[in-house]
Amino acid sequence: MRNLKIALEYDGTNYAGWQVQKQKTVQATLEKALRKILSENIRVIGSGRTDAGVHALEQVANFKTKSALPAQKIQAALNALLPDDIAVTKIEEVAPEFHAIRSAKSKVYRYTILNRRHRSALLRGRVYLCLFPLDVNAMRRQSRCLAGKHDFKAFCASHGSSKTTVRTIKNITVKRIPYRPFPYAQRQKELSLVVIDIEADGFLYNMVRNIAGTLIEIGRGRFAGGSLKKILLSRDRKRAGPTAPARGLCLLQVNY
Amino acid sequence: MRNLKIALEYDGTNYAGWQVQKQKTVQATLEKALRKILSENIRVIGSGRTDAGVHALEQVANFKTKSALPAQKIQAALNALLPDDIAVTKIEEVAPEFHAIRSAKSKVYRYTILNRRHRSALLRGRVYLCLFPLDVNAMRRQSRCLAGKHDFKAFCASHGSSKTTVRTIKNITVKRIPYRPFPYAQRQKELSLVVIDIEADGFLYNMVRNIAGTLIEIGRGRFAGGSLKKILLSRDRKRAGPTAPARGLCLLQVNY
Repeated sequence: MRNLKIALEYDGTNYAGWQVQKQKTVQATLEKALRKILSENIRVIGSGRTDAGVHALEQVANFKTKSALPAQKIQAALNALLPDDIAVTKIEEVAPEFHAIRSAKSKVYRYTILNRRHRSALLRGRVYLCLFPLDVNAMRRQSRCLAGKHDFKAFCASHGSSKTTVRTIKNITVKRIPYRPFPYAQRQKELSLVVIDIEADGFLYNMVRNIAGTLIEIGRGRFAGGSLKKILLSRDRKRAGPTAPARGLCLLQVNY
Repeated sequence: MRNLKIALEYDGTNYAGWQVQKQKTVQATLEKALRKILSENIRVIGSGRTDAGVHALEQVANFKTKSALPAQKIQAALNALLPDDIAVTKIEEVAPEFHAIRSAKSKVYRYTILNRRHRSALLRGRVYLCLFPLDVNAMRRQSRCLAGKHDFKAFCASHGSSKTTVRTIKNITVKRIPYRPFPYAQRQKELSLVVIDIEADGFLYNMVRNIAGTLIEIGRGRFAGGSLKKILLSRDRKRAGPTAPARGLCLLQVNY
């Protein structure tokens, strides 16, 4: 059995997330295409679930196959068969012990907020529109207390199934960047996007979206200074802000 | 009558271009929304037609109305009524003589080519995938002869209806830029996008797409050195390259 590592880019808008369930998912769509190409039942292991509507610049998965078909041929066949909102950006043979979840050292997510008075046509489905001006400095200052090893229970959806709610955030940044609905040029002077990047050794269910939702409340001035630390220490989901919508979230990369 | 200037952003994928015709167009969609808001038949003048599938970061139009509704109210109402692939980014009252076509000094278009071996999920419908490695230096070198005032008949679709085929290209640049399916972070080291930016006082029918198609042939090494100048001077459409697909084209801005 060969073990293949696969990198995927997808627009999550039309999917009920990554994992196989009754509705159309990225994993099921990928497994169906692989079954056709390799004439074999393939079970794909993803580095983690992404929710309905969440995007990926580089999701990583692995699967075992008896097929001797070269990796590049499998990639080309997948890109021909898969719908246009899922693309395979890389595929390579790896050691038998490589496991997309267990071998992952960290993952990086980005949450993108469009902070202006009107919506975007070109970034629709990829950003969360916040009409209220956000104080990015306050968001950044307060976000710092999340870096490091902590119990993130306050930011974990109540139906999360993890054994422990302790995780390590290796890096968290909050910044304002130009509106630039790629591949199009920058609209001058419009710094209307706010991005929150979080790298952690693992993420609880809805953790990034709950942190983003809380930081948005802070940016709007609705939580008193220092309160993010209090929320974190409280381990109480009810004290944190609302869950920010899925469409603003993107899995940027998985580090091994 | 007030004269209102309106800036629009749109994803052209689902439209038969800008101008009113039998299929769904951006202009018709906008006029329908304005009729609803202002209870008046509104005729919108766009700075120029964009073809089916062509996008706009900033298309400009103007229209006359008897309504006294403040511009910001009209903008908010339009963004509430218009489908999510069209957004009004600005609206302001201008002098009665302002005319979106006649007052325009120049327009800037960008053509974007994805130059790698596999397609993109996040930029689907917004780039043209070219699998053959492009020699961007050759494209840039040859493109220089197009700058200035010339007869661009060789790059004008035969069914173009302009009185003269002389136009002035104020600026043309060809460059390789990082793959960065905004609002997502840059994928390291992947310089897989080639963008052609053209600013001119006016454009003939399919002019940018015909220049892009010809430059792609040059980048693939299929035209001998110096030939772009020969094609230009020939004024013969048959000597130029094919028309590059609409989806790679975006109207970036209109200067007044």
